[in-house]
Amino acid sequence: MNGQTPAQKSAASGALVVRAETLTIQTNDRVELTDITDRLRDVVQASRVRDGIVSLWSLHTTCAVFINEAQRALHADIKRLLETMVDRDADWMHNDPQHSDCDLVNADSHLRAMLLGHSLTLQVSGAEPVLGQWQRVLVAELDGPRSRTLRIQIMGIS
Amino acid sequence: MNGQTPAQKSAASGALVVRAETLTIQTNDRVELTDITDRLRDVVQASRVRDGIVSLWSLHTTCAVFINEAQRALHADIKRLLETMVDRDADWMHNDPQHSDCDLVNADSHLRAMLLGHSLTLQVSGAEPVLGQWQRVLVAELDGPRSRTLRIQIMGIS
Amino acid sequence: MNGQTPAQKSAASGALVVRAETLTIQTNDRVELTDITDRLRDVVQASRVRDGIVSLWSLHTTCAVFINEAQRALHADIKRLLETMVDRDADWMHNDPQHSDCDLVNADSHLRAMLLGHSLTLQVSGAEPVLGQWQRVLVAELDGPRSRTLRIQIMGIS
Repeated sequence: MNGQTPAQKSAASGALVVRAETLTIQTNDRVELTDITDRLRDVVQASRVRDGIVSLWSLHTTCAVFINEAQRALHADIKRLLETMVDRDADWMHNDPQHSDCDLVNADSHLRAMLLGHSLTLQVSGAEPVLGQWQRVLVAELDGPRSRTLRIQIMGIS
Repeated sequence: MNGQTPAQKSAASGALVVRAETLTIQTNDRVELTDITDRLRDVVQASRVRDGIVSLWSLHTTCAVFINEAQRALHADIKRLLETMVDRDADWMHNDPQHSDCDLVNADSHLRAMLLGHSLTLQVSGAEPVLGQWQRVLVAELDGPRSRTLRIQIMGIS
Repeated sequence: MNGQTPAQKSAASGALVVRAETLTIQTNDRVELTDITDRLRDVVQASRVRDGIVSLWSLHTTCAVFINEAQRALHADIKRLLETMVDRDADWMHNDPQHSDCDLVNADSHLRAMLLGHSLTLQVSGAEPVLGQWQRVLVAELDGPRSRTLRIQIMGIS
């Protein structure tokens, strides 16, 4: 639906199909945004579900998914906002060995992911995820570099 | 379900129906909240899907949807919080012609929408979206005035 | 799926089943996080929906649901971040009898819930909600103590 106007009305009915698979991405920085729109579209098209929904779920507490534009300048602004809203160096209890059994010193990663969210549920129409002209599906690595797994489930009418 | 207690338990089965249409709203201010609960309810009722879900998707990067109460005073507070959390006048890279091909000077709009989110997936029961007594479905225009399009998809058993 | 690797690929089809019920929790503090993962898993298992989705919806404007780790230290950090981002004592209009008919003085609760979100839509696989190893489903009471109701709807193939 990139650049196209969505159909004004549509209707379909039939048996329910549910398909799922995982997508793995390797990140290179501590905080990094990855555009997975094309990979998500490929998975939806391969599922042959024509009308329905696609759920995208990050299987990690410190890795988020969200919608925004793909632009290098804006992505720098997003990282800066996350740094301003959640200070990495504040004395978070999660980073304090006296209170926490986690030695990753990543309280900021948990808190930033909480603000962005760990999942998206998109509409599927014509075997494609429905997105506005400038909308892209972005993964936010917040405690990389790591290998991250996203579960994609498509559910609808084939 | 406004003001009513949701049924404690329910169950239904049948063929899957998927219906979709778009809703267009015209906004008048740069930052503006619009209550579309009644229009969403009308679309759900007209779909004749009795049990299932309804996805509401903003097709724009700088227009968000979220749940809260409809009250003028609270909506003023929401706008004030967004202004405090994301300063319109900071030197965002997205607003800098040296780094960005976008001349809308709307980095704040992108960042505020990211915090609110671009979609909602509501439950449908008895051909109505399930909402708590004080919950309303709100659209946040963050870079108006503009014409905005939301895609509504209802999926379930009719 | 706690601690397990999700199946790489899966597919199923059949008639759609939609089941719903409500979950009530009693909170004890003004701001309190409750881990409901086990209760959600029980409801999903009892529904006998094998593949599909489960929607979790807070029926309150000042009660949110979100994903994160269950750790006492991190939960203290989450509360602290919410307090920093949304100052309870600012002169919010929602708390001002001149502008608001609400006498709960809970503008901060509305604003904090807006940032966390009122719903989650999780995938269901093998009659279990799909979650990463460290992910837990958390309810954020933001204006307690109160009795809170969440609606859980499971939709898929049994």
